[in-house]
Amino acid sequence: MKRVFNFSAGPAILPEEVLKEAADEMLDYKGSGMSVMEMSHRSKIYQQIIDEAEQDLRKLMNIPNNYKVLFLQGGATLQFSMIPINLMKNGVADYIITGHWAKKAAEEASKYIKVNEIASSEDKTFSYIPDVSNLNISEDADYVFMCDNNTIYGTKYHTLPEVKGKVLVSDASSCILSEPIDVSKYGVIFAGAQKNVGPAGTVIVIIREDLIRKDIDPKTPIMLRYDIQAENGSMYNTPPTYGIYLCGKVFKWLLNMGGLEVIHKKNVEKANLIYDYLDQSQMFKGTVEKNSRSLMNVCFKSTSAELDELFIKEAKQLGFDNLKGHRTTGGMRASIYNAMPKEGVKALVDFMKSFENKYSV
Amino acid sequence: MKRVFNFSAGPAILPEEVLKEAADEMLDYKGSGMSVMEMSHRSKIYQQIIDEAEQDLRKLMNIPNNYKVLFLQGGATLQFSMIPINLMKNGVADYIITGHWAKKAAEEASKYIKVNEIASSEDKTFSYIPDVSNLNISEDADYVFMCDNNTIYGTKYHTLPEVKGKVLVSDASSCILSEPIDVSKYGVIFAGAQKNVGPAGTVIVIIREDLIRKDIDPKTPIMLRYDIQAENGSMYNTPPTYGIYLCGKVFKWLLNMGGLEVIHKKNVEKANLIYDYLDQSQMFKGTVEKNSRSLMNVCFKSTSAELDELFIKEAKQLGFDNLKGHRTTGGMRASIYNAMPKEGVKALVDFMKSFENKYSV
Repeated sequence: MKRVFNFSAGPAILPEEVLKEAADEMLDYKGSGMSVMEMSHRSKIYQQIIDEAEQDLRKLMNIPNNYKVLFLQGGATLQFSMIPINLMKNGVADYIITGHWAKKAAEEASKYIKVNEIASSEDKTFSYIPDVSNLNISEDADYVFMCDNNTIYGTKYHTLPEVKGKVLVSDASSCILSEPIDVSKYGVIFAGAQKNVGPAGTVIVIIREDLIRKDIDPKTPIMLRYDIQAENGSMYNTPPTYGIYLCGKVFKWLLNMGGLEVIHKKNVEKANLIYDYLDQSQMFKGTVEKNSRSLMNVCFKSTSAELDELFIKEAKQLGFDNLKGHRTTGGMRASIYNAMPKEGVKALVDFMKSFENKYSV
Repeated sequence: MKRVFNFSAGPAILPEEVLKEAADEMLDYKGSGMSVMEMSHRSKIYQQIIDEAEQDLRKLMNIPNNYKVLFLQGGATLQFSMIPINLMKNGVADYIITGHWAKKAAEEASKYIKVNEIASSEDKTFSYIPDVSNLNISEDADYVFMCDNNTIYGTKYHTLPEVKGKVLVSDASSCILSEPIDVSKYGVIFAGAQKNVGPAGTVIVIIREDLIRKDIDPKTPIMLRYDIQAENGSMYNTPPTYGIYLCGKVFKWLLNMGGLEVIHKKNVEKANLIYDYLDQSQMFKGTVEKNSRSLMNVCFKSTSAELDELFIKEAKQLGFDNLKGHRTTGGMRASIYNAMPKEGVKALVDFMKSFENKYSV
């Protein structure tokens, strides 16, 4: 067995220790005589798994008691619908458009409410985060929506938007658990698991209790109601039991490492290895503004599309997989989520250097 | 490692061979150097996994070409909303109420359409399937809804309802792939994977193409639109990749065994082992009408609630797990899905016999 260095943007690399444990427990979870996949979600043994996952996530992120933690299905995309459906009162919300997914979220919300796009970086292909220190927040906004880390473009907010007392909703799919954050500044944080946490098919929703309401449109599909999901501990119906179990393992992996401050330090070190090289390379350069750089997705280009292609091809032969940039941006993207070891990033930078030496003119 | 005989109603037992393969491939799927969980859903290697899963399911069930196969999220419960939202034209549908889940489906549908309950077996705690040979089908019914196998009560249709030209929609969550069926008789068949197919978090939808429409309520959440999911090959967003991979393994396990006729024969043999014993036991008796008996969920009781409890306790000590009946019915339930080996059922019946000998008065 040889593992590649997997730079996929998502679904993405998971900690090898976690995968090994999962493999070991596949036929018999801790003497239960069955796989976690085979357990009733109503059993005591499974309840303990989901409870521990929640407790560990609360510990990791220091989630205040007045927030609920939900493990749901449908990915971040279903949250794009659930957010407006569940949060609308005045029927108005402000969206900050920093990329493809923020746009999609706004598009979906506009089915239900009036969407004000209060800032955008589309003018420069989303290569920066707009100034969010003094936004034109709508007086009657039910919430302000942001996408914290923009997977496709490789940008990340380095300061939170000043929302002037409104509820901040954040899609944190590609940066959750990459660094400590102050949960109390948000109304809702949601994240598809498949980038930094676990397998696809589980979405984590952290929501302030007062935002969970019963007086929403009675025609809301029952699975899309936060109140129902919260009352039932994410088990109104059978949850994605195995995905939650794996998320729980990743939470423990992070806790054992020392928590989010420790992983953040590692993430900064890893990202700097690439960014520092990019800043002095003659062949490669980063594609986003320096003060908007993501720690998770590093986007860069060489001097031509042909050279990009050659780089991706040679890299793959050497075991650096999924370095191709998104089809809308071209170039390269190295997604270096929590589970990517520093050695993987070092090896990539070494390869970039040798590639530059070989092909520079 | 010791595996128990797991009679859970769902999530439920999976074939041991499938779990072993999944464990073996956990860190490196076929030389890719990564777990299936870590693969981009847009990669060629993953596309092959989902394509093969679909092809194998089509082969197994002999699904006609004018049907789409979708692998979605949200379980059968989300289908309870998606069915009326996507299928309504006249805004009327007929529901046959054979248990808890059919009731839930009707309740959810009534948010959107006029629901006519055209038959019910609630008068006798859902212990039988009503006569469906000459139902009072509504003239303007957009569809007729049935729940084929009723997990909680242990009943199953043995003939399909005569729907008089209307579209038949079937929740087959607890009997899909247990026997050959004629797909062309249905408009939609859906099934949560977690009973007879794979892990929780994937739902299979088999839908006739002409029922997939674009002219539905524009306020429908995008993830709940069959047209969008069908156009995108179940990948409008990241699907539950690992769950689909496991479903695919189960499909291959069934194909290698010889397909649905072979498994059906095995299922009949297994079920008869228990039913035959129940029919002559002085202590235990089946709780449903003989001609409504399920092959998948065998419900029975002893002579008292105390004896039931003792039975469940002693069974568990001997490695027969999850035999407790649903809280609404009491008694016992042995769920003997495809993956339950005949030896498990034989061993259970032997234990029942010895229990009867020991405690009969």
